[in-house]
Amino acid sequence: MPLVVQKFGGTSVSDADRIRAVADHVVRTRRNGHQVVAVVSAMGKTTDDLLRLAGDVSHVQPPRELDMLLTAGERVSMALLVMALADQGVDAVSFTGSQAGIITDNTHTKAKIIEVRGDRLRQALAEGRVPVVAGFQGVSTDRDVTTLGRGGSDTTAVALAATMGAEVCEIYTDVSGVFTADPRIVPWAKRIGKVSFEEMLDVSASGGRVLALRSVEFARNHHVPLHVRSSFTWEPGTWVVEEDPSMEEAVVTAVTHDTSEAKVTLTGVPDKPGIAARIFRALADRHVNVDTIVQNVSVHGTTDISFTVPRDDLAPSLEVTRGLLPEIGASEVLADSDIAKVSLVGAGMRTHPGVSATMFETLAEQGVNIEMISTSAIRISCVVRADRVEDAVRALHDAFELGS
Amino acid sequence: MPLVVQKFGGTSVSDADRIRAVADHVVRTRRNGHQVVAVVSAMGKTTDDLLRLAGDVSHVQPPRELDMLLTAGERVSMALLVMALADQGVDAVSFTGSQAGIITDNTHTKAKIIEVRGDRLRQALAEGRVPVVAGFQGVSTDRDVTTLGRGGSDTTAVALAATMGAEVCEIYTDVSGVFTADPRIVPWAKRIGKVSFEEMLDVSASGGRVLALRSVEFARNHHVPLHVRSSFTWEPGTWVVEEDPSMEEAVVTAVTHDTSEAKVTLTGVPDKPGIAARIFRALADRHVNVDTIVQNVSVHGTTDISFTVPRDDLAPSLEVTRGLLPEIGASEVLADSDIAKVSLVGAGMRTHPGVSATMFETLAEQGVNIEMISTSAIRISCVVRADRVEDAVRALHDAFELGS
Repeated sequence: MPLVVQKFGGTSVSDADRIRAVADHVVRTRRNGHQVVAVVSAMGKTTDDLLRLAGDVSHVQPPRELDMLLTAGERVSMALLVMALADQGVDAVSFTGSQAGIITDNTHTKAKIIEVRGDRLRQALAEGRVPVVAGFQGVSTDRDVTTLGRGGSDTTAVALAATMGAEVCEIYTDVSGVFTADPRIVPWAKRIGKVSFEEMLDVSASGGRVLALRSVEFARNHHVPLHVRSSFTWEPGTWVVEEDPSMEEAVVTAVTHDTSEAKVTLTGVPDKPGIAARIFRALADRHVNVDTIVQNVSVHGTTDISFTVPRDDLAPSLEVTRGLLPEIGASEVLADSDIAKVSLVGAGMRTHPGVSATMFETLAEQGVNIEMISTSAIRISCVVRADRVEDAVRALHDAFELGS
Repeated sequence: MPLVVQKFGGTSVSDADRIRAVADHVVRTRRNGHQVVAVVSAMGKTTDDLLRLAGDVSHVQPPRELDMLLTAGERVSMALLVMALADQGVDAVSFTGSQAGIITDNTHTKAKIIEVRGDRLRQALAEGRVPVVAGFQGVSTDRDVTTLGRGGSDTTAVALAATMGAEVCEIYTDVSGVFTADPRIVPWAKRIGKVSFEEMLDVSASGGRVLALRSVEFARNHHVPLHVRSSFTWEPGTWVVEEDPSMEEAVVTAVTHDTSEAKVTLTGVPDKPGIAARIFRALADRHVNVDTIVQNVSVHGTTDISFTVPRDDLAPSLEVTRGLLPEIGASEVLADSDIAKVSLVGAGMRTHPGVSATMFETLAEQGVNIEMISTSAIRISCVVRADRVEDAVRALHDAFELGS
């Protein structure tokens, strides 16, 4: 019998009614001839509530104990889902990350999966039971409880789908799929029926919040088809699959945007080898996640280097770069939090070189100034003023005729 | 360095302030030259909240999943206590029941401890760290999460104290010790400084709610001194220790009462061998916990048999006994929920035979009718009308001059 891994996020299990609705759906899926492994996140705002409590108790929060604290969340939701299934006469059984055999390294709060065993899940399936697995958590080789960081439950689901040989990994969430743009900004945005892993990676990397980048990478590397769907309407959503060479590719698949970053600029940087390496090694050592990097051409032997970072990393970025000024002989460090990034993603861009020109023209017509540009094979991103990003998204969505 | 196991119940860790107060106390204990292993329950009403949620989700609650659900509670409190200790510069580390090596049988929701390993706790202590252990939970030989049932956290603490060779197991709670009677009924009741394991067993068995019977039995069998104390005043409380033969024993140590039971009476039971065995085996098979049993003398070849059970077990008790009526040839089964039990406990009773007479006289003077009597070597219990039990407790407390 074909196997489906179904992952239900926090909003999908936020209260007793939603948990019962999830149980209904698992029962329907089985009735349609599939085996099911369910993966659940913590209920609704549980994680936020636990973090607030930790902040009330202590300024010092050892990462190992944060993991112990937060993994309480999935224990509750998974036990409740098993009970809701039992209420419908379906024999289910819950497994912690450790019991499911999700073995990780020892990096608390953002552990990496080393191995997925899944013996107990296979046994449960063989007995006709539905395994309900805690997302987001694992056990380290030191036998400590770990968590997988942001998007961790998606990663759990994909890893289990890969290990168990599932036909598809269904990611249930509060939106009905991946859209051509954020429907809150472009109400006439269309749901995308099918998207390639490569495109989805760029969508996630450039601000699309539906799937965590890491889980998409994992799915691509292990050839696990993803299906992003709504747990409120249960309608078919967006499939994320291997690129099909025979398929006619859309030039532009989606407009994405990201308002979570800040820009750092070093001015008057001497134009000699090793300077950039020195700067970005120092940032990496502080675990700053640098996104776009732009270096202008050298004028009079000096250049300007700009980069964007998550706004939470701005303070350490400034500390690191300002500390380097004397050593590298640059002039000053400027910070700017009022920026946003707008991007076009589309596999067809590879063969349609005019896309960037149309993008820049469209932004110019709107009077939106472009501060930084970066491109990959299937993505073009522009950093603009934060207060103009919504205009930019709407104009690009129209210019490339993505609406329905 | 001497080791103390300190157990903090739900009211002792009910919010951020209380958790910080517990951390202060652990730090004080270490400063006074002791190693500490802390055992915590779930915060305040967490368990009740989780059970309510389970009731909202499903009528069917598989015991294995109830255990998975409820053990989320201690994860939260133990991680928070470690953080509060870290805030004071104390290196602590939390352990689940499984990580602490609390191995149990497979009886979910009321598992029995088979073995306590404690290797990781010993290692943490050797490294100068404070192990903070989840009470109430263990791991079964089938690698499933189990809970120890009522009073489970006390049992965890006592079991760890026995395994780790602790000098004392301190049980912190919201009262300051064991009293000569319930202070809510007898405001002039005195705190008892020291009580023997045997007396404490009878106090617990007859309605004293401070310590679960099971943890006292465990402590007695493993010679672990208990110290019941308040986590609000931190003053010295009641020691529960081995009986000291040289010690002058109080005739009566405490008056206890219990309003949680109901009475079942079978009338017209044929007075022949095997009938009582048939009745109480059938009740045991339904896991009914029968307390006091009284059989009156036989008149005209038939007798009446009365027994008390926890009120929650009344329905199955009636079902079982009514079902037996045709087989055993008894007349009818009567149920009575408006009863209460009042008891005197004291090791000195063994050598003072007048205690029961004084008890009966005292109740008679108050016009309190005695419906059932049962005695052990160091306890006398009387079943009376529920609405007279407080008068009975006060009168007996005065008659035996237990007040301060």
